[in-house]
Amino acid sequence: MLLKKLSIFLLGIVLLKPLIAQDITASMNKVKVTFMLTDNGIPEYSVTYGDKVVIEPSTLGFKLTDDKPLDANFELIGKDVASHDNTWKPVWGETSKIRDHYNEVKIHLRQKNTGRLLDIVFRVFEDGVGFRYEFPKQSKLKYFIISDELTQFCMTGDHKSFWIPGDYDSNEYPYTTSKLSEVDNKSAYEKNKVILVRTVVDYKSVQTPLMMKTNDGLYINIHEAALVNYPAMQLHVDNKTFQLTAELVPDAYGNKAYLHAPSHTPWRTIIVSDKATDILASKMILNLNDSLKITNTSWIKPMKFVGVWWEMQTGKSTWTYSNNADSTDANGQLIPSGTHGANTANVKKYIDFAAANGIGGVLVEGWNTGWEDAFGTWKENDFDFVTPYPDFDVKALQQYAAQKGVHMIMHNETCGSATNYERQMDTAFRFMNKYGYTAVKTGYVGKIIPRGEHHDGQWMVNHYLRSIQKAAQYHVMIDIHEPMRPTGLQRTYPNFLACEAGRGNEYHAFDIGNALDHLTILPFTRLMGGPMDYTPGIFKIKNYETDSSRQVNSTLAKQLALYITVYSPLQMAADLPENYEAHMDAFQFIKDVPVDWDDTKILAAEPGDYVAIARKGKGTDSWFIGAVTNEDARELTADLSFLDKDKKYVATLYADAANADWQKNPEAYTITQFIVNDKTQMKLKMANGGGEAVSIIPATEDQIKKLKWLKL
Amino acid sequence: MLLKKLSIFLLGIVLLKPLIAQDITASMNKVKVTFMLTDNGIPEYSVTYGDKVVIEPSTLGFKLTDDKPLDANFELIGKDVASHDNTWKPVWGETSKIRDHYNEVKIHLRQKNTGRLLDIVFRVFEDGVGFRYEFPKQSKLKYFIISDELTQFCMTGDHKSFWIPGDYDSNEYPYTTSKLSEVDNKSAYEKNKVILVRTVVDYKSVQTPLMMKTNDGLYINIHEAALVNYPAMQLHVDNKTFQLTAELVPDAYGNKAYLHAPSHTPWRTIIVSDKATDILASKMILNLNDSLKITNTSWIKPMKFVGVWWEMQTGKSTWTYSNNADSTDANGQLIPSGTHGANTANVKKYIDFAAANGIGGVLVEGWNTGWEDAFGTWKENDFDFVTPYPDFDVKALQQYAAQKGVHMIMHNETCGSATNYERQMDTAFRFMNKYGYTAVKTGYVGKIIPRGEHHDGQWMVNHYLRSIQKAAQYHVMIDIHEPMRPTGLQRTYPNFLACEAGRGNEYHAFDIGNALDHLTILPFTRLMGGPMDYTPGIFKIKNYETDSSRQVNSTLAKQLALYITVYSPLQMAADLPENYEAHMDAFQFIKDVPVDWDDTKILAAEPGDYVAIARKGKGTDSWFIGAVTNEDARELTADLSFLDKDKKYVATLYADAANADWQKNPEAYTITQFIVNDKTQMKLKMANGGGEAVSIIPATEDQIKKLKWLKL
Repeated sequence: MLLKKLSIFLLGIVLLKPLIAQDITASMNKVKVTFMLTDNGIPEYSVTYGDKVVIEPSTLGFKLTDDKPLDANFELIGKDVASHDNTWKPVWGETSKIRDHYNEVKIHLRQKNTGRLLDIVFRVFEDGVGFRYEFPKQSKLKYFIISDELTQFCMTGDHKSFWIPGDYDSNEYPYTTSKLSEVDNKSAYEKNKVILVRTVVDYKSVQTPLMMKTNDGLYINIHEAALVNYPAMQLHVDNKTFQLTAELVPDAYGNKAYLHAPSHTPWRTIIVSDKATDILASKMILNLNDSLKITNTSWIKPMKFVGVWWEMQTGKSTWTYSNNADSTDANGQLIPSGTHGANTANVKKYIDFAAANGIGGVLVEGWNTGWEDAFGTWKENDFDFVTPYPDFDVKALQQYAAQKGVHMIMHNETCGSATNYERQMDTAFRFMNKYGYTAVKTGYVGKIIPRGEHHDGQWMVNHYLRSIQKAAQYHVMIDIHEPMRPTGLQRTYPNFLACEAGRGNEYHAFDIGNALDHLTILPFTRLMGGPMDYTPGIFKIKNYETDSSRQVNSTLAKQLALYITVYSPLQMAADLPENYEAHMDAFQFIKDVPVDWDDTKILAAEPGDYVAIARKGKGTDSWFIGAVTNEDARELTADLSFLDKDKKYVATLYADAANADWQKNPEAYTITQFIVNDKTQMKLKMANGGGEAVSIIPATEDQIKKLKWLKL
Repeated sequence: MLLKKLSIFLLGIVLLKPLIAQDITASMNKVKVTFMLTDNGIPEYSVTYGDKVVIEPSTLGFKLTDDKPLDANFELIGKDVASHDNTWKPVWGETSKIRDHYNEVKIHLRQKNTGRLLDIVFRVFEDGVGFRYEFPKQSKLKYFIISDELTQFCMTGDHKSFWIPGDYDSNEYPYTTSKLSEVDNKSAYEKNKVILVRTVVDYKSVQTPLMMKTNDGLYINIHEAALVNYPAMQLHVDNKTFQLTAELVPDAYGNKAYLHAPSHTPWRTIIVSDKATDILASKMILNLNDSLKITNTSWIKPMKFVGVWWEMQTGKSTWTYSNNADSTDANGQLIPSGTHGANTANVKKYIDFAAANGIGGVLVEGWNTGWEDAFGTWKENDFDFVTPYPDFDVKALQQYAAQKGVHMIMHNETCGSATNYERQMDTAFRFMNKYGYTAVKTGYVGKIIPRGEHHDGQWMVNHYLRSIQKAAQYHVMIDIHEPMRPTGLQRTYPNFLACEAGRGNEYHAFDIGNALDHLTILPFTRLMGGPMDYTPGIFKIKNYETDSSRQVNSTLAKQLALYITVYSPLQMAADLPENYEAHMDAFQFIKDVPVDWDDTKILAAEPGDYVAIARKGKGTDSWFIGAVTNEDARELTADLSFLDKDKKYVATLYADAANADWQKNPEAYTITQFIVNDKTQMKLKMANGGGEAVSIIPATEDQIKKLKWLKL
């Protein structure tokens, strides 16, 4: 680690004499941040990229509950400058090594009228700026409550933006692409009634990550990193001035964050480049998170899984054992409806399929009692997390799975009753340990209890972290559904494999589904903070057993591409075994594709249009490419110069067939094989709404003889 | 058990034909309740006592959140009549047997416009009426939220009333005695700033138990029984019509109760008599609670205790180990202030004193880390309940106490952070089991977390019960401070020995103290629901070490009387050992007085003026009398006809001295002994603000020879 530190903190009597409030800057390559105090002592900052302004002078500060605001009358009492260059290895990830390279300036402020101290730390990377507020230990600010964070991000113009409504309880909206001047979430809020719990208070608010593109070709992404003990930040958009202002998710009293100095906020992140691919390649958010806090990580293993899930989503079977909670016999026992998905025989089929195809895990939802009336009832003691329905034999299934080398994945739905889950957590995790469950999927579909809290407020932010820490204590990996969107915490807690916090494939089962450009926007927005359990891999695109009106807005080939373009160390093969068995040639890609990587190349990307990514499997010489397009058919060229110069490879192209069309002919695909090397320029030809997946595996002598070279 | 049941529930097709809505009545002795439906189908009830009206026709019903009100358009579809006469034995109590004798009518209603069903059950005892709402299992009312309970108690006139403000978070106000027309809690709310957390929304609201006296001599007490899974009920007082209306404590959303049919409300109780003593003798509230839910109760043992507590209240020592949380040395360790009360050497003194005087328990507050900044900071993770301060040797003290036959009493202060306590509860109780703590005092001094909840709301009502149940699971007795006031749950969970939920002796240490009539009102109000940990027995009435301006508003003799008049199976001898050692002759009463009883006689009582009670020690032939007066000196006569006819007893009278005066000469007492029998009429002579305690123990032959007979 290279660490140079130059402290010019002013000590002793000099403290009484403020520095002249001149601008303070920090920069790296093209990115430069400038800090200044206005005449009234209001802290401001601005950001430039080369000769272009990214953020115009923007206010910093806070309002407090029961105390004077921390918003003005500041004087500069010192600064610390440092630079840092270090490379670290994530437990799992898109690359095996990550360089953390930044210049830092920490600004020490004192508020003249109160004597309170506030530090603001800027870290400048070559791909952006992160900054956070730090509250030093001091006598005049100990326990305090933030009623508003005043942070602004003042945009230079009416940028094109990709956004979802700033909802306190959901990130599952479809994306809107609009000018900043057109941001208004009312219609999106009102239309998306299928999202069970929605709380939009400000029609001009959007969630982060907010992706923008300027008229002069700058790509700007605003989000946050290391969200711990603080509510999620949303952004209020001023349609006229293009100022974005932090809006924090409140608690029952309208308070935002309960803090105790010394403490700090999460990092506010501005990633910027003139290349869209740089945005996707950025590791800034991960770098701004704390290093690993789990000592022994040997039990953390990325994996693919299948599960008793899509069959419920599409109505073939049910989570519930009985038709309703009142459907009981003379002894008060539930009368089975006959449609229960999580029955022992059915689960064995999934275990068999996983074992036969090298899929590591089997998730089973609806295995435990309580589903009949847990949803929409806002009841607190909804589940106990340890009592199976009568037709689900926990022990027998554990033994059956273990014999076949498959891990069972636990499912703990809470319906938003976090208080109940906290009371049951130790019992639940002991149960997982006892029955060999190595991972758990948790869920929060419902209004939050404690009542008055929101999914994205400080209390729940802390709750999700408690669940991650508790899971780590029991050596269980965790996949959280319906939390706030991620902010890079997987660096610190790599047992936090993935979360949902976005609009996944499931919306194709029970709603209008996802727009054709959804998966070209998701990497620039939701995925900036961390892996998503998107549940890709639906092969039966149309004509679900029970609802012929719905379909996945995708070609089959695009579903394969998602295993690359939607990065996650926990990837579901979400369709039913029988639907895979109808296309085992295509399923070969899912069998082959890793979930952990040595390297990643963003080949091409434009938010709303297309994304193409190549990744190298961890500990292998094999590469995998995924490319997706929006509603337009498209041809991209992949330059394979990242391949080893002296090697030949077999490229297997899982492409949309020439006559493929997401709507009319989505399941038409071709699989072709060629020899390729580092000189190859590979065409990726996608149908409208389509995509392409490619595996590139070192060729055997035999293959080199048999297969043709891919023509340029 | 004698149980006659006559069901005239109308079945089948007859259901469609409502009963004629004539009045339905139930009665026992002088008490009669009448139920009726108005022309609009509004349910009403009234109560009479002999020829006097107690409750004029009063509305029943509910408003619901997200559903039509259950307030009118009802039709009668049936009723069930039953009568019940049974005697049960409490695990501990004021008497060893309790007769549960009532006539019951259950009224079945259907709301015509919605088809929803509502039952109202009235139980009429010889000393009052209890009624509750029951929500039968039905298709049209499953999960529902009560936004308001419409129950009224319409008084016949401008009764004299004894009340404290209807505060969502506190029952620790001084009592106001006023006419109903004068009820206004604004000034009480504004004055009592020393109560840390106060939430009064309605200036016309009062807490229950509300004690009233009519101009024609009826005593009326309104409260509730078996408060489970529902918020506490307060009463809105209409100063003009004298209508009292239920007000339920809300949650963050203003909702009151989240219910799931089948379910029911707590019992609303109206105790009535023309004798004040009957109110204190009533067992109606206990009878309306469920029978015992703990199978093995052998570990539940009423006891007296001393503790490291009053020395902190009076400023001689501190709960905290250090002056403040920032007072740390170079290693980050707290620097001791030297005033910490819970240090090993000091605790041993209390153990020694307890062992020497047959006191069963020693409570130690401030033993665990976190006190420096737990109060007023609204922090969530304030205590871990298992980490002692460095000067408190848990293991050594456990061994020391065990050797001397004394039990340590645990103290778990939560500062209102119930979420944190729920997460730590198992750990905390395991710690108690490990170190031999047989009882715990819990505390909730602070704003509640979950934020938005109140001390007396449904969530916290459930939380306190969870703590009682968890304690029972670990065979630990519990004494809860700052909960909602009790409602007789100790019948069901007798490990719930006592709670505070009222204004105890402690207010003499840090505030204006308690009015001279406080202890003549407390039995008619707070104590109606269950035992109170009032912490009596302060002998050093004036001139506290650190604050000479304060004193206990009581004579020393009155402090002794409280062991009888403030019933609790858990009684503290609250003063310091050295203060007892200065008056060991008076302390003899505390040594002798039991905490569990075979029988109780209310000798004389008038709310606001005086209370005199005699109790017979469990399994003994000894009786104990306590009498207290208000600001007036007073002489009461105790008729000892309850004594065994063929026995002679030694009566030891602990009385105010002739020159005693609560303000000028409070510690002046006399102790005299006489022989008494069942013919004796004993004068109890009390100074202003004073009281008297008497032990009556079967005399030995020797005593009969030596002692004089008490003159009539």
